[in-house]
Amino acid sequence: MSVDRLIERIRDFANPTVAGLDPRMEYLPEDLLKKHFDALGETPEAVAAAYLEFNKGILDALQDIVPAVKPQCAFYEALGPAGMETFRQTLLYAAELGYYVIADAKRGDIGSTARAYSEAFLGTLAIGSAAYTAFPCDALTVNPYLGSDNLKEFLKDCDEYGKMVFVLCKTSNPSSIDVQEMMAGHRPLYKVVAEQADRAGAKRRGAYGYSPVGVVAGATHPAQLRALREEFPHLFFLVPGYGAQGGDVFDILDAFDRHGRGAVINNSRGIICAWQKAKTGDYAAAARKAAAAMRDRIRKHVQFF
Amino acid sequence: MSVDRLIERIRDFANPTVAGLDPRMEYLPEDLLKKHFDALGETPEAVAAAYLEFNKGILDALQDIVPAVKPQCAFYEALGPAGMETFRQTLLYAAELGYYVIADAKRGDIGSTARAYSEAFLGTLAIGSAAYTAFPCDALTVNPYLGSDNLKEFLKDCDEYGKMVFVLCKTSNPSSIDVQEMMAGHRPLYKVVAEQADRAGAKRRGAYGYSPVGVVAGATHPAQLRALREEFPHLFFLVPGYGAQGGDVFDILDAFDRHGRGAVINNSRGIICAWQKAKTGDYAAAARKAAAAMRDRIRKHVQFF
Repeated sequence: MSVDRLIERIRDFANPTVAGLDPRMEYLPEDLLKKHFDALGETPEAVAAAYLEFNKGILDALQDIVPAVKPQCAFYEALGPAGMETFRQTLLYAAELGYYVIADAKRGDIGSTARAYSEAFLGTLAIGSAAYTAFPCDALTVNPYLGSDNLKEFLKDCDEYGKMVFVLCKTSNPSSIDVQEMMAGHRPLYKVVAEQADRAGAKRRGAYGYSPVGVVAGATHPAQLRALREEFPHLFFLVPGYGAQGGDVFDILDAFDRHGRGAVINNSRGIICAWQKAKTGDYAAAARKAAAAMRDRIRKHVQFF
Repeated sequence: MSVDRLIERIRDFANPTVAGLDPRMEYLPEDLLKKHFDALGETPEAVAAAYLEFNKGILDALQDIVPAVKPQCAFYEALGPAGMETFRQTLLYAAELGYYVIADAKRGDIGSTARAYSEAFLGTLAIGSAAYTAFPCDALTVNPYLGSDNLKEFLKDCDEYGKMVFVLCKTSNPSSIDVQEMMAGHRPLYKVVAEQADRAGAKRRGAYGYSPVGVVAGATHPAQLRALREEFPHLFFLVPGYGAQGGDVFDILDAFDRHGRGAVINNSRGIICAWQKAKTGDYAAAARKAAAAMRDRIRKHVQFF
């Protein structure tokens, strides 16, 4: 089961980090971008080629340090079809290297349309006698606003293909209070969403008690993260907001259970932009060093069984 | 301003219909699909080429009947990069024919990532000295769960490029009750979302009093649609759920103000699959007939000034 594989990789690496592959032109060394501009002009194709080279460099450098990666779809989508090709190739290359791959696309729609999104990421689309998965991954982030018939479509493919979803619950951004903290009766909406995810996962729990229906809960809201951990011992967390967004190691400690299980901690800029702070052109080596430092920092406080 | 252009096209066509371009293989005449399979094999590229031909046929046939179209991103995404190329070409071709183009992608993310989505659909991404818009459209559907810093990024481009958003409010699916009808204090969440959209639109209203911050409100929930119309006279509605999902003309009448303004009514399967009911291979002619019939049916009850 997908969530068990994630837990075991975190244990084997003694590292709960997921490296966010969120490329932007300004995050790439100038000469890398220039090389592709020289070859293909100032085109989305050139940037897409540069992103892919950049991502592969990062993926090669982190493969024995970081158990999981999370490409953020938006940055690829902004480059159109060429960017989506790079998104696809990034997912495939990461899987080839053994990474647990989380596609961060935050999809959600009415049932019949959610089916198409689920086929794009988790399941397969039948094309004649062939089967095609556009953006293959182990897990997908999903938006809860459309309700259970949206989630159901993704869960079908979780069950059939051994995949996982992370439902947006309490996101890392400041304005997550606007909707997610609306009081629904005596509890904030994000807890209602967590309850719905917990219920959907109840019959799907794996060897470690966690279900493949996880939630997103930001490191920038440590009190909410703690409250969620206490109330929902079977919910696995994807925790964004560590590093550049302000979350520190002490903000995420309560995300784990006493076996060091229950959460993956995302860091994007802190890893892929480490070369800028280190003032080196070797972005891959800088990413490796930053990822190792993050791992070691967390290891001081959490043990992974 | 984008919302004014939409209102004027609805008035000029005396038709508030938006044709949903939601292709699936089973919606296409077999010989059309086969032609592309013969040329390109059972591949996503073949299906993407078939979708584009199908869409162009529909767009050509409806151009003097229907003022707006709404391609649903999911069905293109399921075909990967080739599908996204068809999505892009569909948006461009629709714009070329003068349609008001609504991209239905329901995007939403934290601020910096929402920026990338907004650049992909509404704004532009600077690539060296060039500017690129991956999936150009007049309006985009947006998910409210992430809160105002998500919306803000899209609104920047609405202001700068004269675009529009439709925020998901009360969607047409049965399980829209799960989250959207949670009681937040004394009002359901979808009304809180409508309020937030109304507030964001207050300083942005156009010549007809409507703002470019619209909301999605389903024909399948006529009571809620009516309540929203009464409470929010400046909110423009994108109304899905007419036709195959069960909404009838009497369910949508209250979406309009007394000038016949305030709403576009989506119909997807009822138009693009009309050839199946009509038992004809001429899908474009059947779509045209179905779209004209829908227009005439609405015209009996609503006048457009």
